[in-house]
Amino acid sequence: MFWEKYRVRPGTEVRLKDWDPADKQGGLDDDQADELQRAVVEQLAEHQERLYASNQYSLLLIFQALDAAGKDGTIKHVMSGVNPMGCSVASFKAPTPQELEHDFLWRCVKELPPRGHIGIFNRSYYEEVLAVRVHPQYLGPQLLPPWSPRPEAGQHGLWQQRLEHINNFERYLYDQGTLILKFYLNVSRKEQNERFLARIDEPEKNWKFRAADVDERQHWDAYMEAYEDVLTRTSTEHAPWYVIPADRKWYMRLTVAHVIDALLDSLKLEYPKLSEEERGKLEEARRRLEAE
Amino acid sequence: MFWEKYRVRPGTEVRLKDWDPADKQGGLDDDQADELQRAVVEQLAEHQERLYASNQYSLLLIFQALDAAGKDGTIKHVMSGVNPMGCSVASFKAPTPQELEHDFLWRCVKELPPRGHIGIFNRSYYEEVLAVRVHPQYLGPQLLPPWSPRPEAGQHGLWQQRLEHINNFERYLYDQGTLILKFYLNVSRKEQNERFLARIDEPEKNWKFRAADVDERQHWDAYMEAYEDVLTRTSTEHAPWYVIPADRKWYMRLTVAHVIDALLDSLKLEYPKLSEEERGKLEEARRRLEAE
Repeated sequence: MFWEKYRVRPGTEVRLKDWDPADKQGGLDDDQADELQRAVVEQLAEHQERLYASNQYSLLLIFQALDAAGKDGTIKHVMSGVNPMGCSVASFKAPTPQELEHDFLWRCVKELPPRGHIGIFNRSYYEEVLAVRVHPQYLGPQLLPPWSPRPEAGQHGLWQQRLEHINNFERYLYDQGTLILKFYLNVSRKEQNERFLARIDEPEKNWKFRAADVDERQHWDAYMEAYEDVLTRTSTEHAPWYVIPADRKWYMRLTVAHVIDALLDSLKLEYPKLSEEERGKLEEARRRLEAE
Repeated sequence: MFWEKYRVRPGTEVRLKDWDPADKQGGLDDDQADELQRAVVEQLAEHQERLYASNQYSLLLIFQALDAAGKDGTIKHVMSGVNPMGCSVASFKAPTPQELEHDFLWRCVKELPPRGHIGIFNRSYYEEVLAVRVHPQYLGPQLLPPWSPRPEAGQHGLWQQRLEHINNFERYLYDQGTLILKFYLNVSRKEQNERFLARIDEPEKNWKFRAADVDERQHWDAYMEAYEDVLTRTSTEHAPWYVIPADRKWYMRLTVAHVIDALLDSLKLEYPKLSEEERGKLEEARRRLEAE
């Protein structure tokens, strides 16, 4: 299973310079991508039907990445075959005033997938230890209590505390029957530059471009450091991170689709089987329908 | 502070037979109750105004007890002086089908008080280790995943796991600025019997009586055991349990009011002070109003 090498094994100290954004599996190339992608997306749709029908687990997919790494496109291409009745996407942007009145998990908890459903988080509570860590001034409106550690003076206490709370939260969700997969779409600085230029040059991509995204590039190293901490400390057996090479869009999408499909496949989901009694009721119903 | 002896200190192994439901403070009696109650409720209302105005903390009050111990009456008498704009009550009954599709904390998280507010939980997620523990058949519709511990064969793994998740959850809330007080209203078996009879005998109390409540009395010992485990394992410095003597209604209410009031008092809440610049804006506004 070629995608297994992208999983962050618990205990691994992640250094992103060792994870090649342009990596790909030998033998796989662009030409076959469409066909392979179609096949895995079809399988995924079939698995999701069973997830929905068997109504025992929910699946939470978390996507995190820098701008233009391909979150939106990956969600679109990987999940478009799936019945939207059992699948929803929540995109988390800058918190609203109402959300800021609550603890940082609150707005995400409200969007958790119910049993039988797939919930996709396009960004997530991880921004609390990523964007907020890179821009500690975002903490201002969060009005932390006086007993909270402060990130001033280089103290890392607040981020470590939040990472621990996130681990506890995900462990809790897993114990209640929520499966969790987390994807960091690993784009290179050079590729991001080219994608931004394309957004400026190609009129139909203009709407995706925000000048502020270019400002964020100035914080590249700080983001790398924050991501490394997240990947190192919150990749667990029950809620693993995958660092997905993102410089080739087709390869990124294919890999993500396979990771999700493989997890669902491992559950050996079955359509609910009827008991003798229920079977009898079906036969009774058949008789009444045929007698009409 | 007479109420401090009712706080369960972390590390205490609680045996409820050692906590007298008819206990009261020497020197306090029924005659003075009304006046004392009025005074503390007034103070509480003043403290809540400051909590709301200073907008830094939220306060979560959890009430748990057997039937007829006095949850509803205590909430009514203690909190009625408080401005409902900054205070709300959530009563948790048997979970709805929608709630059962989610993890057990979900329905409670949605009701958490925003910053500056008091949120009262009339029953709570603790029922998951109380009523559900006494009636393990309630677990059926929760469709636990195969990797969850099961309470069959006397295994306590599930309840210990849930208690640990609850501890993590409350620790998280506290770190985000939510203060938590938990009240177990400790009524005696004999007093419960008399209150049920009153509900049957007095027409204006009939509406409160449910025959099922009498059935629950058969499980008294199992409830005591479950409560003892909850009180022993989840009373922490930041989210303490208070075992409130409940056989005298006036004493129960007075004690609960004092515990809440004392916590708010300890925060030394102030109305927000204006900066020089803001003060200047007020003065400018005054000039414009007066010039009209």
